[in-house]
Amino acid sequence: MALIVHKYGGTSMGSVERIEHVARKVAGFRQQGHQVVVVVSAMSGETDRLLKLAKSIAPRGNQREFDQIAATGEQVTIGLLALALEKMGVPAKSYTGWQVPIRTDSAHMKARIESIDAEKLRADCDAGLVPVVAGFQGIDENGAITTLGRGGSDTTGVALAAALKADECQIYTDVDGVYTTDPRVEPKARRLDKITFEEMLELASLGSKVLQIRSVEFAGKYKVPLRVVSTFVDGPGTLITLEDSTMMEEPLISGIAFNRDEAQLTVAGVPDRPGIAAAILGPIGEANIEIDMIVQNVGADGTTDFTFTVHRNDYERALEIGRRLATELGAKGVNSATDIVKVSLVGVGMRSHAGIASKMFTALAAAGINIRMISTSEIKISVVIEEIYMELAVRTLHKAFGLEAAPSVA
Amino acid sequence: MALIVHKYGGTSMGSVERIEHVARKVAGFRQQGHQVVVVVSAMSGETDRLLKLAKSIAPRGNQREFDQIAATGEQVTIGLLALALEKMGVPAKSYTGWQVPIRTDSAHMKARIESIDAEKLRADCDAGLVPVVAGFQGIDENGAITTLGRGGSDTTGVALAAALKADECQIYTDVDGVYTTDPRVEPKARRLDKITFEEMLELASLGSKVLQIRSVEFAGKYKVPLRVVSTFVDGPGTLITLEDSTMMEEPLISGIAFNRDEAQLTVAGVPDRPGIAAAILGPIGEANIEIDMIVQNVGADGTTDFTFTVHRNDYERALEIGRRLATELGAKGVNSATDIVKVSLVGVGMRSHAGIASKMFTALAAAGINIRMISTSEIKISVVIEEIYMELAVRTLHKAFGLEAAPSVA
Repeated sequence: MALIVHKYGGTSMGSVERIEHVARKVAGFRQQGHQVVVVVSAMSGETDRLLKLAKSIAPRGNQREFDQIAATGEQVTIGLLALALEKMGVPAKSYTGWQVPIRTDSAHMKARIESIDAEKLRADCDAGLVPVVAGFQGIDENGAITTLGRGGSDTTGVALAAALKADECQIYTDVDGVYTTDPRVEPKARRLDKITFEEMLELASLGSKVLQIRSVEFAGKYKVPLRVVSTFVDGPGTLITLEDSTMMEEPLISGIAFNRDEAQLTVAGVPDRPGIAAAILGPIGEANIEIDMIVQNVGADGTTDFTFTVHRNDYERALEIGRRLATELGAKGVNSATDIVKVSLVGVGMRSHAGIASKMFTALAAAGINIRMISTSEIKISVVIEEIYMELAVRTLHKAFGLEAAPSVA
Repeated sequence: MALIVHKYGGTSMGSVERIEHVARKVAGFRQQGHQVVVVVSAMSGETDRLLKLAKSIAPRGNQREFDQIAATGEQVTIGLLALALEKMGVPAKSYTGWQVPIRTDSAHMKARIESIDAEKLRADCDAGLVPVVAGFQGIDENGAITTLGRGGSDTTGVALAAALKADECQIYTDVDGVYTTDPRVEPKARRLDKITFEEMLELASLGSKVLQIRSVEFAGKYKVPLRVVSTFVDGPGTLITLEDSTMMEEPLISGIAFNRDEAQLTVAGVPDRPGIAAAILGPIGEANIEIDMIVQNVGADGTTDFTFTVHRNDYERALEIGRRLATELGAKGVNSATDIVKVSLVGVGMRSHAGIASKMFTALAAAGINIRMISTSEIKISVVIEEIYMELAVRTLHKAFGLEAAPSVA
């Protein structure tokens, strides 16, 4: 008998029929003898509807009130799922965040979970009940309702699994697992049976939007085995584990991520002296613009080219600041591009295998793709290329690293 | 400076525009130097929508879950109104039932308030804040959300006013006060400046659906002055007070209520012996059928006619039980009618004035209206007549008791 946390997202909760479908899935697990704790999101679109209503009154109103309003979305779905379970003969009991309680800090709309008292949920499980817990929400020390920010229900699921010392946290969603790359770009993309937390973090942050990144961090920190599974198609999904020990047997590369939302700026020919990076990044950061990649090349003439990428929405503002800084710093000028894309190769196997980068660059060169920018980490190599080559690059790399085939070792 | 509780119903909360209108009203009171605590209902139609959703899954599901779901309606409007107030420069803070807390028993969907800890609300008022409290809901000793049943927001308003020792509880609604009778039936109906709790109870229970009856009982019990005012039209409304001391100066009759939802059953010619009433009413009550009027006449032949009224929805079931009982008790048979209506004259002045009943019956007789059933209480005389005579009866009595004119004494 295992204790499993199930988390169902908004799409899975999108209608009475779907809620009843979820209830059947939970009932099935219980029939196999497992204990199940369920975490749910609001019906798809409901959180947006509620926040839109609040913003129509006061776009920058008190965030405590926004949370008070937004948290009702999950309060409805927990009740509905509990009713659906009981109708199927599965005793169930719904819990809002404060009823558990799930204690958070007071950062409304982006609160962080501080502690969970899982005592009632454990007692319910032992008494044969299925607790149905509202995701995305908690309570702060003043008794105010807080929300965890977008996708926070994944984090609730993982945090509850950690607090309950559950055997697994299963995230039910509308995809049947984590893929080697986006199947819409490369139809030969393959579902991964398992992947490490680190790889998942790189894939998630790079645009494979299967799981909220904070939930993966959380799962890694508390060593909660995490599984991404489809609500609608039966299957094993993808297990996200520590398993660093079996690393040698892992395939070299787990997947290929890409991100179309970036823009590149280069402050060219900056007289090279200590503090240049801070002089450029400081004002960008102060303007609340997030920077993704940063590359600096020292030239032969005592000047340096400083290149970074920002979200396309911030491009115009970043360019303006860049131009001002170029003048102030005596740089030659600013080059920039918005028709670019970042493609990243991710895999823990990289750590212990040389030659991955060169194999990647060779494959791209053979396909006639020019690389504008390179950045590497321990388990990731990212390149910035022209956007028109994106699909070609993804497919080329998918083939070069043999991702279509099932891994040769399990 | 007075402390006033405002209660706004679903119609007043029906849209963003209306919520902003309410915020302006509250802001106006504050500008006059008053402290205001606001109680609100869910947006009109929202509670029904939520309960329908729940019932579509499990029509007779766990009522704890129904409450969990239904309580979200007010949680949204408290947040929205707090935002609207703050936008107008009025500091505000929303409270769900459990955040106050408003403690109730555990009778889900029809909970009763046991106690209110008004400390936080009082501190808010003293700090210049307007607390906005969710009506209709509370929390039981197990930490479960409860609801007070339909119209429960009125009760919340009165209970809060009692707990805060407020100077007045103002119920804002879509009518501008309590009338001598329904203006749709008698266009000459007049708004009452004031009325006693007892009269209001009789008028409310008899179908003048301005206020939830429990809230009036509560207001009477805790001596909270209650005022019914229109959200949309400025005016003094109707004050509901104790003021029994000035009874001699009160008009004899306050109003005329009527109820079209009843059906009449007579078990005729029952052999008269002790226990007959219980023998008939017992099985009706066990079938969960509520009885309104009860009249028993002892005949000359040692038999008795036992007549009672039930809601028309329960008529078929009551008739079936009545027929079975008639056979068992050796009665002559069962007569019944659904095309009846109850018309009631209400007024505390009745207590000290003889002749009201005879004046009433004379007026009805003069209009050619036959009385089928009579029942009296200290401050009320009800008659059951044929439904087609209802409007005629109401107008006849309205005129006979001089209700069109302003009362001759204030």
